[in-house]
Amino acid sequence: MRIKLLVSYDGTSYCGWQVQPNAVTVQEKIEQAIFQVTGEKVRVTGSGRTDAGVHALGQVAHFDTNSSIPPEKFFLALNIHLPDDIKVIKSELAEPDFHATRDAVKKTYRYSTYVSQSILPLRDRYAVQVEKMPDIKKMKETALILLGEHDFKCMSASGGGAKTTVRTIYSIDIIEKDGQIDFYICGNGFLYNMVRIMVGTLLKVGSGKIKKEDVIKMLSTGKRSLGGKTLSAKGLTLMKVEY
Amino acid sequence: MRIKLLVSYDGTSYCGWQVQPNAVTVQEKIEQAIFQVTGEKVRVTGSGRTDAGVHALGQVAHFDTNSSIPPEKFFLALNIHLPDDIKVIKSELAEPDFHATRDAVKKTYRYSTYVSQSILPLRDRYAVQVEKMPDIKKMKETALILLGEHDFKCMSASGGGAKTTVRTIYSIDIIEKDGQIDFYICGNGFLYNMVRIMVGTLLKVGSGKIKKEDVIKMLSTGKRSLGGKTLSAKGLTLMKVEY
Repeated sequence: MRIKLLVSYDGTSYCGWQVQPNAVTVQEKIEQAIFQVTGEKVRVTGSGRTDAGVHALGQVAHFDTNSSIPPEKFFLALNIHLPDDIKVIKSELAEPDFHATRDAVKKTYRYSTYVSQSILPLRDRYAVQVEKMPDIKKMKETALILLGEHDFKCMSASGGGAKTTVRTIYSIDIIEKDGQIDFYICGNGFLYNMVRIMVGTLLKVGSGKIKKEDVIKMLSTGKRSLGGKTLSAKGLTLMKVEY
Repeated sequence: MRIKLLVSYDGTSYCGWQVQPNAVTVQEKIEQAIFQVTGEKVRVTGSGRTDAGVHALGQVAHFDTNSSIPPEKFFLALNIHLPDDIKVIKSELAEPDFHATRDAVKKTYRYSTYVSQSILPLRDRYAVQVEKMPDIKKMKETALILLGEHDFKCMSASGGGAKTTVRTIYSIDIIEKDGQIDFYICGNGFLYNMVRIMVGTLLKVGSGKIKKEDVIKMLSTGKRSLGGKTLSAKGLTLMKVEY
């Protein structure tokens, strides 16, 4: 039977989702837990990779097993063998042809920042410091340009290996509260470093260093160099995958 | 001149506030930073100790210096030499007789818990898992008993060295949101482990294992054994000290 997992992790200590030699990854830890529970060596397939240091509230994955453990109880058995910074929140029986990567239609990421002259130790693990309050209105206006289907080559790092750099962004919500600014970005898929470059570019607009017109130009010319910097992985969280 | 500091720290990696042999503490780290900035070996006096693993959003401390750095700029110089999990948020000139411990009149602590069948990796650093939703109404009713001046011997661990076990609690706010339950407790001072035992006891009432009447009895008899367990340090944060 095929089992679908909802997984959450604090990515700080991991080299991302995907198994790789000489590095500890989330996928590997979950595969090890399944082995300890079932004795089966299986591949766990996630909705997509997350990079080193990126967190997840709602990563989705699937795997096949012959175990007799009821699917909806599986997460409890796996959690016994998982470290506290990786836990399965829910497990359920999936259709035999359900595929966590191929069937994903929407993903939502959150990028968190906080505005402060000094690092704030209790926020800094999951958010990135911004020294001056950016112009939220300007960022929201610029975000509208990014909605819809575009070639996002200008907002991706090389090495992602994607066949096409065209993606659709369904929504960008920028929410400011108590000195924290959260960017919620929902799309049909994301290129390598895309959210981190997108938010870095919006913040550059918010700080007045570039204008909305520069972002329009960035999209039309495909020039990465016009945009903002690639922000740190620690502010990024995969919130939700929809099927 | 005397300088007053507002300090925030993630206590996870520290053996609490107070300098002690063979252990890394927050006080020590700040004294080292002052030495690196001024060349002066000084004692930094905090509003009180926080235990190993306890966090602070607004710890207050003072120290004396002959440095010519403007008091309100001092925090920037100190932060250069402090690790990312300890930062000074604000510095200012204090009256020569200001004393961070003796002059404190009110302290507010927050104890954070979340309700979930499994550990939630993105909440678990600063909050403690509770498996079943407690009865919030019962906890709020019981909290009213704790308000005002009482002998809180029954809610303290030995080893605190306090002269009296009488303290005044000004307010207890229990706020539930998105599966997280935060307890905000404000008082004129707290005994060793007092907040952690108090919240442990309220949760025991919330789970139905003891009743409001048992807490009344606990206070009147001074019996620690009637209460709930001493909760983990990681859920506790010193929010504010008032003078």
